[in-house]
Amino acid sequence: MYTELSKEELNALKIKLEKEYGELKAKGLKLDMSRGKPCSEQLGLSNEMLYIDLGDFKSESGFDCRNYGMPDGITEAKKLFMPLLGCECEDGIIIGGNASLQLIYDTIARAKYAEGTKFLCPVPGYDRHFTILEHFGIEMISVPFCEADLDIEAVERLAAADENVKGIICVPMYSNPDGFTYSAETVRRLAAMKTAAADFSIYWDNAYCVHHLTDTPDVIPSVINECKNAGNPDRAFVFASTSKITFAGGGICAIASSIANINAVKKEMSVQTIGFDKLGQLRHAKFFKDPDGIARHMEKHRAVIEPKFNLVCEMLERELSPDKLGQWNKPRGGYFISFNGFNNTAKRVVELCREAGVVLTNAGATFPYGKDPEDRNIRIAPTFPPMSELESAMQVFCASVKLASAESLL
Amino acid sequence: MYTELSKEELNALKIKLEKEYGELKAKGLKLDMSRGKPCSEQLGLSNEMLYIDLGDFKSESGFDCRNYGMPDGITEAKKLFMPLLGCECEDGIIIGGNASLQLIYDTIARAKYAEGTKFLCPVPGYDRHFTILEHFGIEMISVPFCEADLDIEAVERLAAADENVKGIICVPMYSNPDGFTYSAETVRRLAAMKTAAADFSIYWDNAYCVHHLTDTPDVIPSVINECKNAGNPDRAFVFASTSKITFAGGGICAIASSIANINAVKKEMSVQTIGFDKLGQLRHAKFFKDPDGIARHMEKHRAVIEPKFNLVCEMLERELSPDKLGQWNKPRGGYFISFNGFNNTAKRVVELCREAGVVLTNAGATFPYGKDPEDRNIRIAPTFPPMSELESAMQVFCASVKLASAESLL
Repeated sequence: MYTELSKEELNALKIKLEKEYGELKAKGLKLDMSRGKPCSEQLGLSNEMLYIDLGDFKSESGFDCRNYGMPDGITEAKKLFMPLLGCECEDGIIIGGNASLQLIYDTIARAKYAEGTKFLCPVPGYDRHFTILEHFGIEMISVPFCEADLDIEAVERLAAADENVKGIICVPMYSNPDGFTYSAETVRRLAAMKTAAADFSIYWDNAYCVHHLTDTPDVIPSVINECKNAGNPDRAFVFASTSKITFAGGGICAIASSIANINAVKKEMSVQTIGFDKLGQLRHAKFFKDPDGIARHMEKHRAVIEPKFNLVCEMLERELSPDKLGQWNKPRGGYFISFNGFNNTAKRVVELCREAGVVLTNAGATFPYGKDPEDRNIRIAPTFPPMSELESAMQVFCASVKLASAESLL
Repeated sequence: MYTELSKEELNALKIKLEKEYGELKAKGLKLDMSRGKPCSEQLGLSNEMLYIDLGDFKSESGFDCRNYGMPDGITEAKKLFMPLLGCECEDGIIIGGNASLQLIYDTIARAKYAEGTKFLCPVPGYDRHFTILEHFGIEMISVPFCEADLDIEAVERLAAADENVKGIICVPMYSNPDGFTYSAETVRRLAAMKTAAADFSIYWDNAYCVHHLTDTPDVIPSVINECKNAGNPDRAFVFASTSKITFAGGGICAIASSIANINAVKKEMSVQTIGFDKLGQLRHAKFFKDPDGIARHMEKHRAVIEPKFNLVCEMLERELSPDKLGQWNKPRGGYFISFNGFNNTAKRVVELCREAGVVLTNAGATFPYGKDPEDRNIRIAPTFPPMSELESAMQVFCASVKLASAESLL
């Protein structure tokens, strides 16, 4: 335990750790674990889709997908997404283009929030959500997690107290980066809670809804249904995409909500576009056939990436547990491992890694305004590098954590 | 000549025309000439692209198009578009998703125009442009055409007189719906004119830049170069798409401008999306290989649609010229024939056509706020219906023009 060492012992340890780190640095690695990117083997699982027979290019309803029209997407693509989004009505969903982030951005843009608007942001969270909110001048209020679930009491309190609190943005399943899945009670309470703002919205980015890493997948109630049942039918906007199912560079995405909300979105969207890429929708529909097809496909993803998650967790356990140099989750799904080291070490770890050729997500990125108040959280994205590179990168990571931890105690 | 008839003669004529119209109406047609949609044969020209060999899915630069990244698009897609947009620098262009309309919308949204902003709108023009401007609360000032060219003197006068006039939005080649191409002098003067607003922008929707219908295609100078040469390098934003080259429901689009403008767009765009569909870009690049490939492909389009334009012009000539019941253009490119009838007849013609089963673009759609001050312009879109249907539709159209003209004189 570093914390139990004397100053002399720590200094000696630091010299030893610097030597170990220096040897790794000398290898001149060039590895990237900065983003949650699928690896080449994962992408290959869907190559077949790129050449799939599109028949007469018509949707089930007889619409020629090659032509203009169908701004809300073809029915068979809607049917693929509906269970993923917890949407039970074809009029309550729109299929978009390549990026659900754009749908989130556009939905927030359309809300035209006034100055002084605040959003609740579970932390650690997804940096790109925070960037969107900052872009629109929305003040972000961090909300913690509590026992591997959203701190719903904090959310209820904050939403009830201030009419400027207009929304919450979150990843409710296998959260980015902690891998937490909100409990059924949390979802129900979010849907039912009293809010000071009459137009409080839940931006529900269900990015990892089918991205399981166990035989007993997490489940989560439909927030759309819960909102409806609680008498707040227009409260939730739900998003998902196939970016991490088929292709991050050529998937399709969806937004679901109440029919009233979706009708309003359609109306404004019709100013913006005549329609999204329907050939991509047709390709996805023909490739998966039905939501079960997606589930089966995700098993193949799991087979590729589970060993990577295991490797990272094993190395952290072996290298860092004996000296209690941090905590991390063993995720049940999603794309990340969230590492919490000693306070005031995260930036230093990222710096040390970078100097040794391993690029991590910036420290602080998982918090609003890029500021981790304790400077201890680092998001590890294990999916992209091949196993051998991942091992090298994690050696650098662990050596950096050890060195930064020793430094922080001196 | 209807205008030379006595009231009695006109009444007798009207009875005869009502009978003729009634006989056509009795056929119970159901035809749509409302939008400039490619026909099935045109779409079929690109079917091969949907199955094209994508090799190892990598761009020329070695980037895996299946994955995240490359927010400004792959180089080979840029190279396809650059001559179409008059852009000479890879850093001055971004390849977008399916819809150039979305790029136009987003570019105007990013400008965050203050209340009271005005735009110049050449009329007749593209209804979807007007809808975007109206959506953002931008006041539209109609500018006429003059001798088959933009009335550049009117534009110069209006832009110089009022600092709230912040832009012009136009289709400079084969304009929608008149098919006019701006002269080189007009382009140069637009680029060089003194504007009261320091941030005056030209939104240059070059939608029909390769959509020629003659052996001697119109040419137009690069507005980007002209702006640069005139010392107004950041004035123009240029847009184009493959919606009417490959697939209206699955093309790619582009925006080009000065490097400074494009850098600013990239920065804001990075909040919105991680990147557009790069597999679509790769498909287009492999299908066309180079801009000449696009030119050859457009010859095939011409072979399909030129007979339709000819048919419409011939029927108008035969049916309406003897009595001078209107004027129209014989377009050298683009997607439309612009018909101008007697004043105060356009709405009635569209109504008569609709009642006889032929859907046209709404009268007035080609003007800001949907209001044609003289109620005489109708946009005819000949590409979508098969020849036989087009002939039936034009019979109804001509009969409706005759009847509405006679009615208007009574």
